[in-house]
Amino acid sequence: MKYAIGIDVGGHNIEAGLVDGDGKLLESRNVKVLDRSPTSVIDQVADLAKELIKLSPEKPLGIGCGVPGIINSAEGLVLKSPNFPKWSEFPVMATISERVGLPVVIDNDANFYALGECWVGAGREYRNMILLTLGTGIGGGIIIDETIFHGDVGFAGEVGHMTIEMSGEECDLGWKGDWENYAASRAFSTLVKLLGDGERNSFLKVNSLDPKNLAPELMAKLAGDGDETALKLWGMFGEFLGTGIASLINILGITTFVIGGGIAESWELFIQGTRKGIARHTYQENIDRLILERAELKDSAGIVGSAYGAFTAFSE
Amino acid sequence: MKYAIGIDVGGHNIEAGLVDGDGKLLESRNVKVLDRSPTSVIDQVADLAKELIKLSPEKPLGIGCGVPGIINSAEGLVLKSPNFPKWSEFPVMATISERVGLPVVIDNDANFYALGECWVGAGREYRNMILLTLGTGIGGGIIIDETIFHGDVGFAGEVGHMTIEMSGEECDLGWKGDWENYAASRAFSTLVKLLGDGERNSFLKVNSLDPKNLAPELMAKLAGDGDETALKLWGMFGEFLGTGIASLINILGITTFVIGGGIAESWELFIQGTRKGIARHTYQENIDRLILERAELKDSAGIVGSAYGAFTAFSE
Repeated sequence: MKYAIGIDVGGHNIEAGLVDGDGKLLESRNVKVLDRSPTSVIDQVADLAKELIKLSPEKPLGIGCGVPGIINSAEGLVLKSPNFPKWSEFPVMATISERVGLPVVIDNDANFYALGECWVGAGREYRNMILLTLGTGIGGGIIIDETIFHGDVGFAGEVGHMTIEMSGEECDLGWKGDWENYAASRAFSTLVKLLGDGERNSFLKVNSLDPKNLAPELMAKLAGDGDETALKLWGMFGEFLGTGIASLINILGITTFVIGGGIAESWELFIQGTRKGIARHTYQENIDRLILERAELKDSAGIVGSAYGAFTAFSE
Repeated sequence: MKYAIGIDVGGHNIEAGLVDGDGKLLESRNVKVLDRSPTSVIDQVADLAKELIKLSPEKPLGIGCGVPGIINSAEGLVLKSPNFPKWSEFPVMATISERVGLPVVIDNDANFYALGECWVGAGREYRNMILLTLGTGIGGGIIIDETIFHGDVGFAGEVGHMTIEMSGEECDLGWKGDWENYAASRAFSTLVKLLGDGERNSFLKVNSLDPKNLAPELMAKLAGDGDETALKLWGMFGEFLGTGIASLINILGITTFVIGGGIAESWELFIQGTRKGIARHTYQENIDRLILERAELKDSAGIVGSAYGAFTAFSE
């Protein structure tokens, strides 16, 4: 059996684990980020890796390390990361590798997450798949032939920024009509404006809601309590989600989607709308072949996917 | 020197040519489609191929045949073609190959066009590129690592059907807000509705225009004559074109675009708007790397690209 180390660096926590060649997570660790400078985080990453190496039945073949942001995986550089602005152009891959004495591959966290789902999660039967994470934005990981697709230098998969409503709302980068305004955490503040005045005002008043702060968890609770307008808004959310998925299908000709992220917990509230949105915007042949799955790996996804990145990069 | 035959089957004409390994078109033929049934077209294709084989200095290594529609290139089948509805599931590749005695590869015509531009046209310096053809719709050919990207079974590249304005106009398939409603031949009928009433009515009246029939050629003529509103509409056209290109960049991380099709003749009228649209919807790093080129191969693109399909498929 071969072993690899998977590390998932987040803005607040670093998760690390030892994973075997069957995708089984043998050991895991979770520490808080002490300081977001590259040297400090790399210290923590190196310490976690060394600890896990000692626990491994044999020397792991390498380390996969996921980082939020846009990564040039081929060169091992972080090109752009809102969470880690100082990491830009820092030799992350080379520095970790030197410190730990193992080969290292770095990539965007959503890309490794996608790879994990394709390896031992909901996408394991498919060679091509797209992972969508529904959270603050819509993250994407495109897997072609069981391999992460990076585009020219690493900017592929920024699917949340595709324009779905050119005359619509701006995203947090100031770009108008982005998909993630309509089908991620801030969606409900956008969607509520599309209701009739009467319905909107009554919905906000009865439930004492701030229209700028309609969190998905709150909206899920209201829908669970049977609020008709909340249910309708989830239907709209689903339809916008599906419309964007149809665009990805039309562009990429890939019909397998695995959906994760916190909002995927409300699957039953939006998935019918999603299927409707897809059906309205693509060919029947694509609809017939459509696979929509919930992500399966949950908390271990980042670690397992990152480890698989190492397996694929460093296995002979 | 090696030789291959490229054939481009259109709804009205079949173009065929003998192409050498440097991409030079040595001989070409053009015949009218007599009857759109698969057997009749394949008779014509086989006759053209046999004629060109006789003219070749040595036996060509194979035939590439482009067909409008959605093609399963791996199996050599036409899955869906509005121009050739009876071709669905007909063994096109196998039948031509049997009739002519050479190996055959078939693909979507825009895919072969893209391949030709990547080989000896405007995309020759790039390994990844996206060809867009601006005509009745927006056709797309996605080239990754100098190879046509097909998606799961051949439905990739239907970029004209991505949703850019969910609340907007329907395309001819009844799908709402498709990109090709805003940046292909029917765009001006859509865009004119976005003008203020006064400007629209005056523009239509002064030029005696039917708002449902604002052909790009006519609009180019008016813009060439200095009509302010026509110039403004071309700017809007460009901006919608650029917004969709930005979405493709955000999804695929590819920043090289080659633009062909009849409307590309009006390049100077829309390209500034296109750059503006792109700049508003993607990262500065992508804008810095952006390459926008006019297609170079013109009339021979289909033949040369199809021949290159044969070179890549059948060279050892």
